[in-house]
Amino acid sequence: MDELIQATGLHEECGVFGIYDKTGETDMVSAVYSALYALQHRGQESCGIALNVDGVLSGHRDLGLVSEVFTKRVLEDLPRGAKMATGHVRYATAGQRVRNNAQPMILHHCKGAMAVCHNGNLVNAAKLRRKLEMSGSIFHGTSDTEVIAYLLTQNRLLTPNIEMAVSRTMDDIEGAYSLVIMTHTKLIAARDPHGFRPLCIGALPDGAGYVFASESCALDAVGAAFVRDVRPGEVVIADHDGLRSIDTHCDTAPHTICVFEYIYFARPDSYIEGTCVHDARLQAGRFLAQEHPVEADVVIGVPDSGLDAALGYAEESGIPYGVGFIKNKYVGRTFIQGSQAQRESSVRIKLNVISSTVKDKRVVLIDDSIVRGTTSARIIQLLRDAGAKEVHFFVSAPPFTHPCYFGTDIPDQKLLVATGRTLEEINEIIGADTLGYLSVEHVKQLGIHSHCDYCTGCFTGEYPVAPPTETMDIVYDKPLSQSGTGKVL
Amino acid sequence: MDELIQATGLHEECGVFGIYDKTGETDMVSAVYSALYALQHRGQESCGIALNVDGVLSGHRDLGLVSEVFTKRVLEDLPRGAKMATGHVRYATAGQRVRNNAQPMILHHCKGAMAVCHNGNLVNAAKLRRKLEMSGSIFHGTSDTEVIAYLLTQNRLLTPNIEMAVSRTMDDIEGAYSLVIMTHTKLIAARDPHGFRPLCIGALPDGAGYVFASESCALDAVGAAFVRDVRPGEVVIADHDGLRSIDTHCDTAPHTICVFEYIYFARPDSYIEGTCVHDARLQAGRFLAQEHPVEADVVIGVPDSGLDAALGYAEESGIPYGVGFIKNKYVGRTFIQGSQAQRESSVRIKLNVISSTVKDKRVVLIDDSIVRGTTSARIIQLLRDAGAKEVHFFVSAPPFTHPCYFGTDIPDQKLLVATGRTLEEINEIIGADTLGYLSVEHVKQLGIHSHCDYCTGCFTGEYPVAPPTETMDIVYDKPLSQSGTGKVL
Amino acid sequence: MDELIQATGLHEECGVFGIYDKTGETDMVSAVYSALYALQHRGQESCGIALNVDGVLSGHRDLGLVSEVFTKRVLEDLPRGAKMATGHVRYATAGQRVRNNAQPMILHHCKGAMAVCHNGNLVNAAKLRRKLEMSGSIFHGTSDTEVIAYLLTQNRLLTPNIEMAVSRTMDDIEGAYSLVIMTHTKLIAARDPHGFRPLCIGALPDGAGYVFASESCALDAVGAAFVRDVRPGEVVIADHDGLRSIDTHCDTAPHTICVFEYIYFARPDSYIEGTCVHDARLQAGRFLAQEHPVEADVVIGVPDSGLDAALGYAEESGIPYGVGFIKNKYVGRTFIQGSQAQRESSVRIKLNVISSTVKDKRVVLIDDSIVRGTTSARIIQLLRDAGAKEVHFFVSAPPFTHPCYFGTDIPDQKLLVATGRTLEEINEIIGADTLGYLSVEHVKQLGIHSHCDYCTGCFTGEYPVAPPTETMDIVYDKPLSQSGTGKVL
Amino acid sequence: MDELIQATGLHEECGVFGIYDKTGETDMVSAVYSALYALQHRGQESCGIALNVDGVLSGHRDLGLVSEVFTKRVLEDLPRGAKMATGHVRYATAGQRVRNNAQPMILHHCKGAMAVCHNGNLVNAAKLRRKLEMSGSIFHGTSDTEVIAYLLTQNRLLTPNIEMAVSRTMDDIEGAYSLVIMTHTKLIAARDPHGFRPLCIGALPDGAGYVFASESCALDAVGAAFVRDVRPGEVVIADHDGLRSIDTHCDTAPHTICVFEYIYFARPDSYIEGTCVHDARLQAGRFLAQEHPVEADVVIGVPDSGLDAALGYAEESGIPYGVGFIKNKYVGRTFIQGSQAQRESSVRIKLNVISSTVKDKRVVLIDDSIVRGTTSARIIQLLRDAGAKEVHFFVSAPPFTHPCYFGTDIPDQKLLVATGRTLEEINEIIGADTLGYLSVEHVKQLGIHSHCDYCTGCFTGEYPVAPPTETMDIVYDKPLSQSGTGKVL
Repeated sequence: MDELIQATGLHEECGVFGIYDKTGETDMVSAVYSALYALQHRGQESCGIALNVDGVLSGHRDLGLVSEVFTKRVLEDLPRGAKMATGHVRYATAGQRVRNNAQPMILHHCKGAMAVCHNGNLVNAAKLRRKLEMSGSIFHGTSDTEVIAYLLTQNRLLTPNIEMAVSRTMDDIEGAYSLVIMTHTKLIAARDPHGFRPLCIGALPDGAGYVFASESCALDAVGAAFVRDVRPGEVVIADHDGLRSIDTHCDTAPHTICVFEYIYFARPDSYIEGTCVHDARLQAGRFLAQEHPVEADVVIGVPDSGLDAALGYAEESGIPYGVGFIKNKYVGRTFIQGSQAQRESSVRIKLNVISSTVKDKRVVLIDDSIVRGTTSARIIQLLRDAGAKEVHFFVSAPPFTHPCYFGTDIPDQKLLVATGRTLEEINEIIGADTLGYLSVEHVKQLGIHSHCDYCTGCFTGEYPVAPPTETMDIVYDKPLSQSGTGKVL
Repeated sequence: MDELIQATGLHEECGVFGIYDKTGETDMVSAVYSALYALQHRGQESCGIALNVDGVLSGHRDLGLVSEVFTKRVLEDLPRGAKMATGHVRYATAGQRVRNNAQPMILHHCKGAMAVCHNGNLVNAAKLRRKLEMSGSIFHGTSDTEVIAYLLTQNRLLTPNIEMAVSRTMDDIEGAYSLVIMTHTKLIAARDPHGFRPLCIGALPDGAGYVFASESCALDAVGAAFVRDVRPGEVVIADHDGLRSIDTHCDTAPHTICVFEYIYFARPDSYIEGTCVHDARLQAGRFLAQEHPVEADVVIGVPDSGLDAALGYAEESGIPYGVGFIKNKYVGRTFIQGSQAQRESSVRIKLNVISSTVKDKRVVLIDDSIVRGTTSARIIQLLRDAGAKEVHFFVSAPPFTHPCYFGTDIPDQKLLVATGRTLEEINEIIGADTLGYLSVEHVKQLGIHSHCDYCTGCFTGEYPVAPPTETMDIVYDKPLSQSGTGKVL
Repeated sequence: MDELIQATGLHEECGVFGIYDKTGETDMVSAVYSALYALQHRGQESCGIALNVDGVLSGHRDLGLVSEVFTKRVLEDLPRGAKMATGHVRYATAGQRVRNNAQPMILHHCKGAMAVCHNGNLVNAAKLRRKLEMSGSIFHGTSDTEVIAYLLTQNRLLTPNIEMAVSRTMDDIEGAYSLVIMTHTKLIAARDPHGFRPLCIGALPDGAGYVFASESCALDAVGAAFVRDVRPGEVVIADHDGLRSIDTHCDTAPHTICVFEYIYFARPDSYIEGTCVHDARLQAGRFLAQEHPVEADVVIGVPDSGLDAALGYAEESGIPYGVGFIKNKYVGRTFIQGSQAQRESSVRIKLNVISSTVKDKRVVLIDDSIVRGTTSARIIQLLRDAGAKEVHFFVSAPPFTHPCYFGTDIPDQKLLVATGRTLEEINEIIGADTLGYLSVEHVKQLGIHSHCDYCTGCFTGEYPVAPPTETMDIVYDKPLSQSGTGKVL
Repeated sequence: MDELIQATGLHEECGVFGIYDKTGETDMVSAVYSALYALQHRGQESCGIALNVDGVLSGHRDLGLVSEVFTKRVLEDLPRGAKMATGHVRYATAGQRVRNNAQPMILHHCKGAMAVCHNGNLVNAAKLRRKLEMSGSIFHGTSDTEVIAYLLTQNRLLTPNIEMAVSRTMDDIEGAYSLVIMTHTKLIAARDPHGFRPLCIGALPDGAGYVFASESCALDAVGAAFVRDVRPGEVVIADHDGLRSIDTHCDTAPHTICVFEYIYFARPDSYIEGTCVHDARLQAGRFLAQEHPVEADVVIGVPDSGLDAALGYAEESGIPYGVGFIKNKYVGRTFIQGSQAQRESSVRIKLNVISSTVKDKRVVLIDDSIVRGTTSARIIQLLRDAGAKEVHFFVSAPPFTHPCYFGTDIPDQKLLVATGRTLEEINEIIGADTLGYLSVEHVKQLGIHSHCDYCTGCFTGEYPVAPPTETMDIVYDKPLSQSGTGKVL
């Protein structure tokens, strides 16, 4: 489901970015701005940039898309001359919740200032926060990031440098995290030992410096060359002396990257753990064709997220690939008023069938996921209205039925169409002639890389790390947790 | 060239829309809003909605996209209960000029009020305007539409009804026009005898009423069924008695529809003169493959406008179709500061190569047009940087070299890369291994419909109607023409 | 009643301004901007600036205050180098009506372009407009100004120059008008033969040029010296040759300036017809003290509009002048939600009593008008709540009971507290110990200048010019008149 | 100097407000909104509201005026049903500095959540912060308020309730502070033992609850009755059981209220320590007349801040009081471009002389302060240009020459005209015929209340509390202090 088509689907939590150029020749504001544009798909709720000019940290962050937050005036007001910078995007508002945790978070502590960017979710955040509060700490928001910041600060008091503090903090925190931390003099990247979320290293031309980013597409956006992924459990430090690594937490846990990064979240042009995301999706389509062969006249994908797998299915099956839909590229935030009938037509504003492609045809329709099922049902109805004789609907992922504790915002299980329903029951809602999902076995072969495994918890309920026994929402009584959701406070 | 990728390309002038529901059951505000969204690709500079509630005309129009102009608050402020409405989108700002001619234009005259929507360009507007001014008329703006409105008004004084006034006005005006006019009681569509610009008729369900729109995709957006195209020279009236037609101007000139509607302007899901635009583009790709066969490993298109023809090329040539680029779907109005190097990277923000598709491959690259050549050159360079061994660049239209006088905003001839250059000279700028255009002969066969011909003036310099001997800019001295370009005045 | 305190009081229609500097040394944008600030009290609904750079007219106008419409960005976008410019402010929105007639109106006609600024109301506008429409004219809005523009244009065809066209147009139009008209080469001021609305002439230093303005405070704002008022019926032309006058319409009617200019509309620092407005208000207070002597301890005024008359009353009566209220200077456009009780407190947000001034005192309270009576009643209650023993309320104008046809927007007669009520009945609503108005006889002596008389039609129902027998609203049926009230159309 | 006339004058730090209504009948959003409007003069940089709905704290705060931050939409989004609320306004941006410390600050700690509002300045903030950081605390901003919040939190861990934590915190902090603190169940006010800044208690009607506010004008705005001032050193608790007081810090230091509250900061209708501010200013004018008698024809004040003292001078001297200036009430944030000459005219936009009042007169001009002298010089020149024969300029305060460490933002000493200059030297810059200041002796008699003394440190350099030996700016090196000044971060 493309997030422009289905507003209440899955959400990635965040994208992080950091850049260090010892020569000072890179226009840091433009670079982070370009990188955040490239990472915008990882989070549309808020974004921010932090800059380090001669050791002074400052920046800007706000709710909104990069293009909305970083207006011409805001960009002009940002300081020039930085040699280091970080940026962050956060996920889109999930209806009732508005969070107050825009990043990078700039903090002052005994050793100076620090900007923290975080992608992921800790499973022991609530426990750590309760402990910190019992020793007198105060919290401005409700995010894990503030917990990490406190631990970094307190560990910094006990260690000779920030990288040691990062490493020691990794002893305390459990779960998924890809961090980029900027201090007066250093830019540091760290990734949890399971490597749930991607994080990679790029090099600026002519040895000028280094870049850290959630996805390699952000390296391309700033003209940096891909070097390698940050290893699970690794701490990488970029400073005036170049790049160093601390690997004390490496190989302490199985590498279980989130499979949804390949299926859904990441941009097709990114490489994660050696595999191009576009290729993984083509492969998912090929596997689908093997698992669900069907007689048909044309294979189409739901734009944009189903197109790659549709091409793979067409290639494997020999059925011609066609363009079945036109997506309205101007639809951003529509406001449709009025009757239920009118609201139902909102899919029609965003998506229209190219009837000449499907009329009187047996159609194979490919998408990458079904969330609530209502949008899929409408799309299939659109095809039938346009004259499709048959609609065979295949999904390039297994049905997801369990919550994610590692950085993906999946709607409540009760809203997921696959929860507690058989394939037949799901299809009664969807209304396809045939409905098929990709098997978990095939999904695990997408990356074709032997050196790491996948977390498929959302499909199987089996998680690499024990899920939290308490959430922030439970630990902190209603007053507390809600009080953090004020728009600006 | 997709307009999100190349800001200074070709521009369609406008999209028009009108709807009449005698039952009053359609939510007119939502309907026009949805239709304008579907027509947004025809004009991004300004838009407007006019409503007729019990014979009272009112509305809202402003500079900006539909989503920008029609905010929640503006939509709520629009009157409810209309049985008739019109809407309009205008083309994107071409650099230095900001025009003050947002539509629908609501005017008061002796017989009441009237809302006028216009797509096209008159060739005798300057002459008509001078004549009107000499008899005491005053003009608030510089558009042809105001000239048409005066003629309608004056002819209305001499004729028993508005449709006769429209017909008589068509005696006076020459050139390209698709009009939608709303009065107290009638909704009228009219199309010039050459049928330069598309205009079609739809029917609301259950005989509730009728819809006029520049493209059939707007009918789909409001749930109307396609009835037929308005015939060149026809005047169609929708009112309480149903649909009537005046055909006195039909068949008075050859039907010469603008070929660029198929190649570039119209949405792929629209049907124009019986041909699906997507099919015409697939066909363009097939013709390209016939004209320019080449040994290659993959066919890719420049998103989004070159994708259809790329698929057609792949189909005809047997070379596999691939996805070569990812287009950043969040890029709207970027603001890139800084150095020349940085500005050059703006293509990289909008477009990134999926390197696994092209690396070490011989690539066929398809686009629908080359305007200045600079963007094409950069895109080819991106492919080479990503490891493409060869890049064969084919364009699904002939080189355009002449101005358009019928509603397309083509940059000054001096800026067009094809003007005065041989194919080889163009390719020196573009940098492809092979460069090829679609022939004019093939372009004329795209619609596969015998009942009409194409205007190919921009490729050949041969126009169906004599171009104007004077433009508005020439007739009215600099002070006058410029004084109309103030942003709001 | 200060308009910040009572949102639904009286409204001046407009303020006009024009400036011509043959040396080109005045920064025209800054000058008009400053002048409009000085005239802002004459109209808060919309404003605009038109500039003439080498004969080219352009500008900007919009709904809002000068500070809102002319943002830094808008000011920077206006062209530099003008030698001539005009500006205009229009009155504040009166509840349900939003008008579409922002000025200066820039128009194109056979002889070039023209910017028109108008303050006043024609009594024969409806008749003239109907006649123009019957000959084929079209109207974009509903204002008198568009009627005047048509007449100017048509008369321009019949006369050798614009000033003759202005003079001839004055033969046709009846009622109140102060006009400033800018053409390619001339700046022209004209005032109706009755001189209802003020209009004065200023001179730039060193003979550089001339200024026309509704009030002399705008001359001060641009550093121009006051020369004289434009005479009733006079046409004054400023161009490269200096200043010329056409007096053919002078002395054709009695000079009957609107008395409310002195009492309410004009700024205290302006001079109108030789009298300082502040002095006229002091005098009104002195007259009030003569008409309504009372035993009291302190005289206070309702800020800001009642303060001058309160000082005059104190001076004449010998009762000490005190500061009774503090007006919140930050209150602009408040938005008070909630209960009726809360809404009633909106006066309390804007105005608070300085209780030490009035506690246990017999208070004389002065204001310049009572419109609906509700605000006056609340203010008196505030004083009693603060401990005032007695409140004697005197108004520095007679009760107004009749409509104005000459440029003042008085609420519907049914809403006026004085309509059809005796003094006692009014005071039952107001709740003062004593209530008194200034007599019509005294109001006529405010200017102390023998050369002109006052229009006191709103107090007496006797008008210098016969009121219109039909209004725009009547002539044009509801559809037509309403269709002009769309926010932007 | 009115802050609308002189943008770079003195600035109050803040205004605080809290309200508790056990009945829940007060519309809390409207109440705080009204109160912040009444306190807007105490701070124009930022503002905020915090609400307590059933123990849940939430709110909104941002840069801007109350009318800008609390738009209709923001107000509608705030939760309803609160029984407790606090509000805060902060001072206007002083040029280069933009601070990130909007309040109320909502914080989470081990015992729940807490909203903190603070007016004042601690002299030992830097020392306390350094100590906190050394034990692992992190800071998001640079304000004293965050230091106070940490101390409250840590003391809360050691004490049985919040009021004890407040009291214990008062052992640690030194300087000026008026605090309003809201927890889940209590609203608490506290004032430093010197009582530098005002803070008063009001009662809602019918015993429904209590209000705390910096000034009594905010009580009037919400319809609360004045009860008394919070005593220096007192902690007052409002909760479901009513009002309680802790007086352990009372009478531990001399009461030295800031004299500038009477002269400049507070609103004339407020009562502080039993004295009406308006009366204090009248008295200052009377003292001025005693100290600086002069032969003159009229006494005028610089609006708005000099008007009260001018009236007092007139009363004492017997010289008539006149209105010398009209202040443009529409001038908010002007943007004047262009030449130096034009910029100098900015005073003329804001202020114009009523020439009839001063022409050919000997004028006494009263203002409440001179900061840089440039504005005063221009105002005197305006009077001379308008024909004043003599201008005798008296200031209703002593020359201020020393910094304030207790909550007033005085420009750098180098910018103060009185620093290091004799009266004659100052007058060479000002250009009056006579220049006189109010003596320190008289200023100390303004309140006429024996129970407290004044802090006159800014006039004398003698402070009731030893000034800080280090400022935040010094303690925290440049990187740290600057990194907190980012606009949003």
